[in-house]
Amino acid sequence: MKMVAEIITVGDEILAGSILDTNAHWLTQELVTLNIPVLRRHTISDDKEEIVYALNTLSEKTDIVIFTGGLGPTRDDITKKTITEYFGGKLIFSESLYAEIKEKLSHRSKNFPISNREQAFIPDNAILLSNPLGTAAGLFFQDKNREIYLLPGVPEEMKAIFNTAIRPRLLQKFGEKNKVLVFKTTGIMESEIVDRIDEGLQNFSEIKVGYYPSVLGVTLKFLIKEKDILNVEPRLKEFLYHHLGDDIYAEEDIDISEVIARELKNREWTLSVAESCTGGLISHRLTEIPGISAVFREGIVSYSNEAKMRLLGISEEMLKRYGAVSEKTVIDMARGVRERAGTDTAISISGIAGPEGGTPEKPVGTVWMCAITPNQEKTCCIFFNKNRSLNKLYASQAALNLLRKLLI
Amino acid sequence: MKMVAEIITVGDEILAGSILDTNAHWLTQELVTLNIPVLRRHTISDDKEEIVYALNTLSEKTDIVIFTGGLGPTRDDITKKTITEYFGGKLIFSESLYAEIKEKLSHRSKNFPISNREQAFIPDNAILLSNPLGTAAGLFFQDKNREIYLLPGVPEEMKAIFNTAIRPRLLQKFGEKNKVLVFKTTGIMESEIVDRIDEGLQNFSEIKVGYYPSVLGVTLKFLIKEKDILNVEPRLKEFLYHHLGDDIYAEEDIDISEVIARELKNREWTLSVAESCTGGLISHRLTEIPGISAVFREGIVSYSNEAKMRLLGISEEMLKRYGAVSEKTVIDMARGVRERAGTDTAISISGIAGPEGGTPEKPVGTVWMCAITPNQEKTCCIFFNKNRSLNKLYASQAALNLLRKLLI
Repeated sequence: MKMVAEIITVGDEILAGSILDTNAHWLTQELVTLNIPVLRRHTISDDKEEIVYALNTLSEKTDIVIFTGGLGPTRDDITKKTITEYFGGKLIFSESLYAEIKEKLSHRSKNFPISNREQAFIPDNAILLSNPLGTAAGLFFQDKNREIYLLPGVPEEMKAIFNTAIRPRLLQKFGEKNKVLVFKTTGIMESEIVDRIDEGLQNFSEIKVGYYPSVLGVTLKFLIKEKDILNVEPRLKEFLYHHLGDDIYAEEDIDISEVIARELKNREWTLSVAESCTGGLISHRLTEIPGISAVFREGIVSYSNEAKMRLLGISEEMLKRYGAVSEKTVIDMARGVRERAGTDTAISISGIAGPEGGTPEKPVGTVWMCAITPNQEKTCCIFFNKNRSLNKLYASQAALNLLRKLLI
Repeated sequence: MKMVAEIITVGDEILAGSILDTNAHWLTQELVTLNIPVLRRHTISDDKEEIVYALNTLSEKTDIVIFTGGLGPTRDDITKKTITEYFGGKLIFSESLYAEIKEKLSHRSKNFPISNREQAFIPDNAILLSNPLGTAAGLFFQDKNREIYLLPGVPEEMKAIFNTAIRPRLLQKFGEKNKVLVFKTTGIMESEIVDRIDEGLQNFSEIKVGYYPSVLGVTLKFLIKEKDILNVEPRLKEFLYHHLGDDIYAEEDIDISEVIARELKNREWTLSVAESCTGGLISHRLTEIPGISAVFREGIVSYSNEAKMRLLGISEEMLKRYGAVSEKTVIDMARGVRERAGTDTAISISGIAGPEGGTPEKPVGTVWMCAITPNQEKTCCIFFNKNRSLNKLYASQAALNLLRKLLI
């Protein structure tokens, strides 16, 4: 059965411009991955008339409607009441839910907020979807051939209810359990990936593929039906690694820093970083990973040439002869920081982030980088023609990727 | 005249989950600031039926409709054609626009893409809104009492056309030119700001205020009518600085790093940074600012205690006695990096980012920081109880703010 969805975000704070709506984007990706196209998305205010309008103007094609927002305890959260009445039901006080909410809030404050009592009223025409993280339960209304889901607006709670209650239900609707495979790539453009795998993917008629490009790389998602998993999954993996090889850096939704952290921990190797153009971004990204202190020792942001000399031991003659943005300099930077910090591995990078500082030989965006492990040393020069901030981000990713490839 | 808006985003790539729609959020903030509430937002696909549906289901209250997306040269961008025909017009080839597009593309490639020729067809029932950055012009349709604007989906082009052609037009509709004042604050919660100024703002009946909280602080926006500017603006500024003082760090939409860069340049002072828990984020944020190399010399990410000793001169005894997260240590870190780098000013920071590493005396989120200028030295301890990533971001902002306050 082919299903089509609409997503409706309810929230005055979004229409006031105070909050960027990331819920609809997340739900879209999840639904598309489940092979459920999203026909339309809407954002409306916490207003009875507006909610009724949204329900009245749903497309005839739509089988699944997901509302987010408007389930909190504040007065203007009237989504639950309006939708319950729209489908001919009424709200009934649930002693057991009330006890559960009180229990959940007991450790937060001594005075139980009276407004949370509202959350214990539940529709007599809906199924409750338990909220593992908060007090606002999700709701499921069955309306003839259409399924209506209500989720809270807090992103973590919305995701938790979707993951535990809605995704399994939607997968069941297909009459089988599907599996989603994720492959994260970096250092390779979407068009290049298409060139390499699109034709071969024709041999996998059982799967559905999604490409999700971002600044840091392209994520591939494959939906495989339950009955095909045993047969398809090993073949697909073999096919992908054959054509994309080590451009794939993870089979789950994690940052490349985390892959590096894991590989270093496995080997009990330590890391130091010497950055110029990225200005601390590489160290910052590495230190986003919990437990990185077990492997990451120090970072040097050697912005001035004087700092490159004093902190990394680069010679003045080298800087004069080859310039700060050169292969020789990044090699000496990586060797310098590795030796002084006494680490097993090191990354270095030097480039022209822009908008000033470019020359005809070395235009803005020229970046040299180097990675060292106990048994390898590799350099790379890449040219990024974006703005300063994007150049830094691309450059940090390329440098992290250079080290990663030496670790696998 | 009170106006109400709807925003319609057209784009299959958004409904495929490939792109996060930030255009609608930006337009919402701009419209709200212009005193034009946004009633609803919609995202629909590049499909004739869907565009017609969106036009047919507009609210009766809506005076202004802004479409974004679907004006590019690719085949599926049919917004222009559909809307032109919906309002009874037709597309006519414009030689002059074609010449202009060719001129704009001439430096990009030698082969003029045939698909760009489509962009030279313009409606005979709309006004062209010139695009200073790209080839897809904006369009303005007047439909009885309703104004319909079409903007391209590329964010920079969408913003440029809005800023140059639409905002002035909408301001004119009020019969007067309004002014928007922006005040960026940090280190102070929204509720605290409300407590300090909400009552006093009642004396400014001529203005409309908007609060926009984010992780890095609260932005205040005030809309003042033209006739009130001379009278209100100086009074309002005096009132705000009286109650918020140096918690206001800018009167334009810039990062606190840029304020620091400007103040340092004015004084011809240089800066170095020694970071532990923020792991390079402070240096990264400073180096986002073009031209920062004139003042920023180096950053030390002293993650290990060994690095703190070797790179900053912290004594082992000090670390043993007071710990790495202590006032004494951050003072020595700031003094150490300042002296070694030979800079006029310095920032240091050390804390427990989490999720591990906390103790009862120093729980996860405890952060000590220090800022030094040639004539002042100041420390500060703040406790952040968010996740690792947010703790880093809050901590970097607090440390930058500590230095900023010494520079004003």
